Amino acid sequence: MSEKKFPISPERLEEIIKKHPTPFHIYDEKMIRANIRRLFKAFSWAPSFREHYAVKAAPNPRLLQILREEGAGADCSSLPELLLADAAGMQGEKIMLTSNDTPADEFQKAIELGAVINLDDISHIDYLEKNAGFPSCLSFRYNPGSLIEGNDIIGKPEEAKYGLTREQLFEAYRIALSRGVKRFGLHTMVISNELHADSFINTARLMFNLAVELKNKLGIQLEFVNLGGGIGIPYRPEENEVNIEYVGQGIRQAYEAIIQPAGLDGMAIAMELGRAITGPYGYLVATVLHEKKTFKDYIGLDACMADLMRPAIYGAYHHISIMGKEAAPCDQTYDITGSLCENNDKFAIDRQLPKIDIGDRVILYDTGAHGHAMGFNYNGKLRSAELLLHEDGSIELIRRAETIDDYFATLRYEGSVL
Amino acid sequence: MSEKKFPISPERLEEIIKKHPTPFHIYDEKMIRANIRRLFKAFSWAPSFREHYAVKAAPNPRLLQILREEGAGADCSSLPELLLADAAGMQGEKIMLTSNDTPADEFQKAIELGAVINLDDISHIDYLEKNAGFPSCLSFRYNPGSLIEGNDIIGKPEEAKYGLTREQLFEAYRIALSRGVKRFGLHTMVISNELHADSFINTARLMFNLAVELKNKLGIQLEFVNLGGGIGIPYRPEENEVNIEYVGQGIRQAYEAIIQPAGLDGMAIAMELGRAITGPYGYLVATVLHEKKTFKDYIGLDACMADLMRPAIYGAYHHISIMGKEAAPCDQTYDITGSLCENNDKFAIDRQLPKIDIGDRVILYDTGAHGHAMGFNYNGKLRSAELLLHEDGSIELIRRAETIDDYFATLRYEGSVL
Repeated sequence: MSEKKFPISPERLEEIIKKHPTPFHIYDEKMIRANIRRLFKAFSWAPSFREHYAVKAAPNPRLLQILREEGAGADCSSLPELLLADAAGMQGEKIMLTSNDTPADEFQKAIELGAVINLDDISHIDYLEKNAGFPSCLSFRYNPGSLIEGNDIIGKPEEAKYGLTREQLFEAYRIALSRGVKRFGLHTMVISNELHADSFINTARLMFNLAVELKNKLGIQLEFVNLGGGIGIPYRPEENEVNIEYVGQGIRQAYEAIIQPAGLDGMAIAMELGRAITGPYGYLVATVLHEKKTFKDYIGLDACMADLMRPAIYGAYHHISIMGKEAAPCDQTYDITGSLCENNDKFAIDRQLPKIDIGDRVILYDTGAHGHAMGFNYNGKLRSAELLLHEDGSIELIRRAETIDDYFATLRYEGSVL
Repeated sequence: MSEKKFPISPERLEEIIKKHPTPFHIYDEKMIRANIRRLFKAFSWAPSFREHYAVKAAPNPRLLQILREEGAGADCSSLPELLLADAAGMQGEKIMLTSNDTPADEFQKAIELGAVINLDDISHIDYLEKNAGFPSCLSFRYNPGSLIEGNDIIGKPEEAKYGLTREQLFEAYRIALSRGVKRFGLHTMVISNELHADSFINTARLMFNLAVELKNKLGIQLEFVNLGGGIGIPYRPEENEVNIEYVGQGIRQAYEAIIQPAGLDGMAIAMELGRAITGPYGYLVATVLHEKKTFKDYIGLDACMADLMRPAIYGAYHHISIMGKEAAPCDQTYDITGSLCENNDKFAIDRQLPKIDIGDRVILYDTGAHGHAMGFNYNGKLRSAELLLHEDGSIELIRRAETIDDYFATLRYEGSVL
């Protein structure tokens, strides 16, 4: 069971809304800090543990600054994401570029920042060398193919566009060695939003064995193995979170059984968790504009799928509560909708909730990852603001809401200003 | 069969790319004009025919200006869309607001512009009157429920969030009459991207009978019936376009059989086609950055799902050709991917194409509707430019590509400029 509790009182929320109208996402700094500390503690046994936060999940430099203060780095997969990490004060090898189908300017920026570069394909060795030169520390992304099952979200590894095959991997390290690269890492990322803890331990075992094989066959002493991200969160109250301490201990056993006897002791473990770090500590706050009763009972919010795409695109569950009605019986059945002109713009279908009134504040949970980040401007919808709830209860605006001027900024027509 | 032919020669395209780097969408002005003229001709028998172009499909004022010149108005469903129509010079009742879960400012802007307002719910009568007042001409959106089957894209009408039930519809007109509204329209939109021509004729028949019933029961002389949009386009070469002349004649027969005998002659017919007008005449032009061979053969473009979401989100087919290789045998099997860090960022899976080389220009077809419009910034991806191909072959930039500055514009963090 995972508790779904919004960290702000109804009275305080109304004060916040006076200054920052709904809809907005709000992130709980205290809990994000506590959560990433818990991750580092679970891996405190490791000679060196690195968390490269998956910037894609919540691409806001202010959040990245908080994570940086806690010791995290960044997992970037585009040029703007590299710049976000840089803006957050992350430096050098705290930043890891794990991209695919990578353009030259992205490699160039990564080199300029001194980042670790993780190549997605054997052909990228030549492309990188030609367009940007090699980084001090080079890594390759392994695609284990049918050795790992994957899951519904990321699909089967052998059907994924990512990574090198086993055969290519050995060849790639050979080529890189021959070109003078001296420092190496190894990476994989095969599951997404997975709640089964043993998956991560199994992946670690597979990767550790590969690290040993690389040492034995090529004499490479890997500096790190990056196990990727993919730790899910319990979107539904009846789901349980992944026990990160259990994962940490399981990986420790694998490390002691495989890495230490092979003389690879000191090799760092890296992860690139995004969703598991910030996901549960973001909330989308919206206001009820309309109730509509036709063939079903609809509650219309001032937020829409542009603010949170997962329910509309994936049919994903996000928990919902009504401010001040937490104790009321859930004896009504509603579709909770946004105003976007798409029939799938529904945050929930046939959801059991307390009786809702117009003006009620609606809390959508677990929007701290892949929430605001995925928003679009379809149907002329403007993306919402992001707020940060500090430990002392004060509020910081960390992204203003989009404006009409933003929406028109790129347009060129008769009568346009540019 | 629908011919898939890019209207620009390889040599001319290279000249264009020198000034406007890929990726970009390019729209064919000549064909868009010819296409909307064909629509107006197919309905030239009607006492008055109105096309309110669905702005959502291609929200660019420059395109709207062209459509305005051809006599079209706009179908808007958000405040920014109202402003786009206004920016394009569309005026008064050329603009129709068909929104749902509508906020007050949207109604207020529609009133200010003198637009027709089409209400989605009976409860919106009070909300509109209180927040904005009534427009000169008021319409209601009818949801026929199980009377119409719908299709896979828009779903079954009785599960759609849109419109009023039959019972509510009559009640709504009664209320509006009692509040002094004198001019009325009627609207429905029950199918999306449909290629079966008779669907549209059947919808017209249903709506015409309803118009007669409204006259008989309430004495309302409807000024227009808006049959919505929903005419699909043949994304696949083996599909056939909807014969708009056949649809026009079928609706004419229904009009003569139902509307004229009832003394409603003069009632206008309105449609709100978007996809069918501009869809086939937009092209996404991209360049091949990488080829990757692992478990499959991947071609990586400089465009990604941020430029065209339909394949990734819906698994939708978009035709692809390789510039200069139109006559070459399609003897290779590729996945065509973008660089977004999502495994579903694939424009095509297992597509038969000619042998592709790095640097080749790739044309993705039928992006003139719901193409650029749906793009997001996930993973830090910047949305592409839009170009207009004039009849004389010259090129006009009608939307510049997004920049890093655009991407950072809303952010607030330590060290940010604002």
